[in-house]
Amino acid sequence: MTSNTTTVRPRPAVEITQWDHEADVVVAGYGVAGASAAVAAAQEGADVLVLERTGGWGGAAAMAGGFIYLGGGTPLQKACGFEDSAENMKAFMTEALGPGVDAEKIDAYCEGSVDHYNWLVECGVPFKASFWGEPGWEPPGDDGLQYTGGENAAPFSATIPPAPRGHVPQMADKQSGGEKGGGFMLMKPLTDTSAALGVRSVYDTRAQTLVTDESGRVVGVVATQYGKEITIRARRGVVLATGSFAYNDRMVEAYAPRLVGRPAASIEEHDGKAIQMAQALGADLAHMDATEVAFFCDPQLFIRGILVNGRGQRYINEDTYPGRVGQATLIENQNQSFLVIDEAAYEEAQATPTATPFLRHQPSWVCETVEELEAEMGLPEGTLQTTVEVYNKHAAKGADPVLGKKSEWVRPIGSPVAAIDLRGFTGGFTLGGLRTSVESEVLHVSGEPIPGLYAAGRCTAGVSAGGYASGASLGDGSFFGRRAGRSAAKG
Amino acid sequence: MTSNTTTVRPRPAVEITQWDHEADVVVAGYGVAGASAAVAAAQEGADVLVLERTGGWGGAAAMAGGFIYLGGGTPLQKACGFEDSAENMKAFMTEALGPGVDAEKIDAYCEGSVDHYNWLVECGVPFKASFWGEPGWEPPGDDGLQYTGGENAAPFSATIPPAPRGHVPQMADKQSGGEKGGGFMLMKPLTDTSAALGVRSVYDTRAQTLVTDESGRVVGVVATQYGKEITIRARRGVVLATGSFAYNDRMVEAYAPRLVGRPAASIEEHDGKAIQMAQALGADLAHMDATEVAFFCDPQLFIRGILVNGRGQRYINEDTYPGRVGQATLIENQNQSFLVIDEAAYEEAQATPTATPFLRHQPSWVCETVEELEAEMGLPEGTLQTTVEVYNKHAAKGADPVLGKKSEWVRPIGSPVAAIDLRGFTGGFTLGGLRTSVESEVLHVSGEPIPGLYAAGRCTAGVSAGGYASGASLGDGSFFGRRAGRSAAKG
Repeated sequence: MTSNTTTVRPRPAVEITQWDHEADVVVAGYGVAGASAAVAAAQEGADVLVLERTGGWGGAAAMAGGFIYLGGGTPLQKACGFEDSAENMKAFMTEALGPGVDAEKIDAYCEGSVDHYNWLVECGVPFKASFWGEPGWEPPGDDGLQYTGGENAAPFSATIPPAPRGHVPQMADKQSGGEKGGGFMLMKPLTDTSAALGVRSVYDTRAQTLVTDESGRVVGVVATQYGKEITIRARRGVVLATGSFAYNDRMVEAYAPRLVGRPAASIEEHDGKAIQMAQALGADLAHMDATEVAFFCDPQLFIRGILVNGRGQRYINEDTYPGRVGQATLIENQNQSFLVIDEAAYEEAQATPTATPFLRHQPSWVCETVEELEAEMGLPEGTLQTTVEVYNKHAAKGADPVLGKKSEWVRPIGSPVAAIDLRGFTGGFTLGGLRTSVESEVLHVSGEPIPGLYAAGRCTAGVSAGGYASGASLGDGSFFGRRAGRSAAKG
Repeated sequence: MTSNTTTVRPRPAVEITQWDHEADVVVAGYGVAGASAAVAAAQEGADVLVLERTGGWGGAAAMAGGFIYLGGGTPLQKACGFEDSAENMKAFMTEALGPGVDAEKIDAYCEGSVDHYNWLVECGVPFKASFWGEPGWEPPGDDGLQYTGGENAAPFSATIPPAPRGHVPQMADKQSGGEKGGGFMLMKPLTDTSAALGVRSVYDTRAQTLVTDESGRVVGVVATQYGKEITIRARRGVVLATGSFAYNDRMVEAYAPRLVGRPAASIEEHDGKAIQMAQALGADLAHMDATEVAFFCDPQLFIRGILVNGRGQRYINEDTYPGRVGQATLIENQNQSFLVIDEAAYEEAQATPTATPFLRHQPSWVCETVEELEAEMGLPEGTLQTTVEVYNKHAAKGADPVLGKKSEWVRPIGSPVAAIDLRGFTGGFTLGGLRTSVESEVLHVSGEPIPGLYAAGRCTAGVSAGGYASGASLGDGSFFGRRAGRSAAKG
C-alpha cells in the first residue's frame, strides 16, 4: 500500500488485502502506559507487538522526574515510617483531583495501589527507602518518597490524614549528578521486562487508523513506517497509549485554551491522535479541559515569601504542592503572580538544596519598604501594603488564618523586601481524553465498550478530573496500562 | 417497529423497511435553533418537518428573558443612539467570550449581525427602540436594548468602544406585568412564520438515533412517539437542535463538574442526546467545559456595594455583566461570595426598578463597624477591614484602581454596614457541544463535514469558548440555526 493516511476514519477489515504484522495484542505507544500494557498482556500469555512512533521506547515518561502516585500503605511508605490507607488515599484523591473524579477509577486505583507497587518492584523498578521532606518539585538526590499533592497542607490536611505518595524510582548515579531521572528508571526496567517476556516492538512506526470488522470490533491498526502504510492485525485487541493532546494546537484551543502556547512536561508526539482515532469509532470523552499546570519557580524560594496576584492579593498557601499553585495562578488568577519575599528569606532559600536551581529567579524589584515596592510593581496604593500588613500581623503569632500555611513556614516579611515577577510562568499538559472503564475498555458514547479497543495513559481521562498531583500520570498510566494489557490479552 | 431505542448508535438505512414520515429537511428540536432552521430551510424551498419532544414549540428559548446578542450597527442600536461596528463587536466577543473562540464563527456572526436582525424583524419579531441603562439582569419593562456582556465596564471598555448588544423582543403586555417575556416573543413570530411557510411539526416525538446510508451520509432519524419507534426520512439533511447537556448528569460530571447540581436557565429536555447521536458518527466536540453562570443576586443591589470572596478579598468589578460575576465566583473563587454594603446604599437599591426583585436578599449580618462585621462573618482579622479600607481610600476620590469599577458606582462604604451571604448562589447551563462549521455542518473528528448532518444552538459549541454574554445563545442559536436550515435545504 502507499502512504499518507490523512484521515482517522476507521478502515474496514475487508479492504485489507494483506497484514504486514500480526499479534494477539497490538499496543500503540511505548511510554509508561504502553510498556505496562505490553508487560501485562505478555504475562497473560499473549503475543504482543508494540508500535512506537519514535526511534525508541520511553515516551514522555522516560523524560519525567518519575513520580508514581501510590499509597494505601506501600512497603516504601512503611519503610519510611508513614502510615496510609486506601480510604485516606481515596478521600484525598477525590477531593484534590476533583471535582468530578471517576469514583470507580479512584476506588480501583487506591485499592490496587499496594499491589501495583509490588508489581513495579517485581518488574525491577528500584525504590530507595528514604523520604524527602523539604519543599521542591522533586528530590535533589535519590530519595524515593515525597509529598506531591499537597496532602500535608491546607485545605486537605485538616480533614484527611496525610501521607506522602510520590514514589520515585532510584537512579543509580542521581546522587552524583546523573542525567537521567526517575522516569528513565521506571521505563528501563519495564521495557527490559517486556523484552524478556518476548514482547516485540517496531519503531518509527506511527499508528494512524484503526481497522474494524463488520461488527464494529477493532481488529487491527493501520500505521505509517518510513512514509509507507503498513497494516497490523490484532487477534485479541488493540491498546492505545500514545499520550496527551498537549501538542495538538487545534485540540488545545478547542478544549483547554488557557494552555495554548504553553505546553510543558510533554513531548511533541503528544498530538491527540489516539483520541481522534477512537472518536471516529464513537468513543466518549471526559474532562477535556483538565490540565496539569507547572509553576516555574523553585518551591524553596516561594514557600519563604507570599504569592500575590495581579491585584496584590494572596491566593494560595505557598506550602502546598506547586502544581496547585500553577493551576490557581493560570485558571483562577489570570496567570498573574508575584513572589514577595524579604532579603533574609531569599538568602535562606539560596542556601537550601533543590532539584530546580534554574527556577530560583532573581528579584525583579528590591525596596526598603512594602510601600515603595507596591509603587514599583505598579500595584494600586494600599493593596500590597495591606496584604503584607495582614499577613505579618498573624505571622507574628505563627499563624496564617487566611490561607492556612503551616506555622513553620509563616514568618513576618521584613526589610529589604523584593518581588519576583512570575506573570505567565506556567505551562503544562492535558489530562482529559478517552473515557475508559476500570478495565481500560474504551467506552462508546452509548456507554458500552468498543469491542477490541483498550486505552490507558494520557490519551484517556484517568484519575484526575481537574486537580492534579505529581505522579498521577505515571501512576494511572501504569496502573490502567496493566489493566489494558490484561483486558486485551483476554480479548 | 417496537419501542425502546436505548442506544445512540446510528441505524443503517438498509434496516429501515418503512418510513413513517418524510421531508427534505428534518429538524430535531423546536426551540430557537430549530425554529430558525425550519424557517430558513422553508425559505429555500425545502419541505420541512420538525420533531419536538415536548407538547409544543418553544424549548428553553420561550422561557428565556429573550436577549439576542446582536450588533455592528443594528437599526435598533441606531434608533437608541448607539454606534457600533462589526470590528468592535468582534474585538469584544473575542476577548470576553474567550480564550479560544472560533474566530471564523465570530467573524461570520459579527459581519452577519445586522442582516440577522433584519431577518428576525421580517419574521415578525418586535423590538422597541428604547434603551435600559440601569443595572439589571434584564429590563423591568419592555425596553429593547441593554448592555449584556460588560461592554461598558472594565476591563473591556478601556480598549474596545462599547455598545449595548442585548436586543430583547417586546412583549405587548410586559409593562403591565405580562407573564411571558422576550423569549416567548421571539419564538411566537418564528414559529408563526414557520407555519405560514408550510413547515410541518410533530410533537411528543423524541429523536433517538440517526439513520445513515452505506456511504455514511445521514438520511433520516429514528424517533419515539408515545412509546413507539417511528422513522423519518430526510431527503436532503437532518438538523440537530435539541439544546444543551445541562440536565445530563453524567455528561455534566464528565465535562463541567462545577455545574453538578446547579443547572439553571435551562430545561430538563436538555439531555445532551443530540451531541451523543452525532458523536456516535465520529462528530468532533469543542469547549465542553464552558458554562454560562448566573449569579443569584440583583445587580441593583450588588453594584452598590463590594463583592468579596471567602478570604474577604474583592475579585471583580461589581458594575460588569452579572454573568461574569457568576463565572468569577464559581470558577475562580470556589463559589464563595459575600456582598458588603452599607445601609444607605442598601436603601437606595431598594428604591430602584428591577426585573428581579426576588434576588434582593436580606442582609445576613448587620454591624456598626467593618471590624465587627468581619468577626461576625468569620473572616480572619484584618482581611475585610483592609479590603474596605483600600476601597474607601480610593472611593473617596471616585476611583477603583483595583478593579476599575466606574466612578459613578464608587462610593465609600459607611456605617451601619451589612453583608449578604451569597455563597453557592450560582447556577447555569452548558455552552459546549458539537463542533460545527460556519455553515452549521457537523464536523467529523477528521475535520470533514458529516454528510447530511447539521446542528445549531446549545447542542453545538457556538460563539462562546468559556466567557459569556446574555443573548449569545439565542443569538448564535438563531444565527447558525438559519445557516443549518439553509445548508440542509441545499443538501
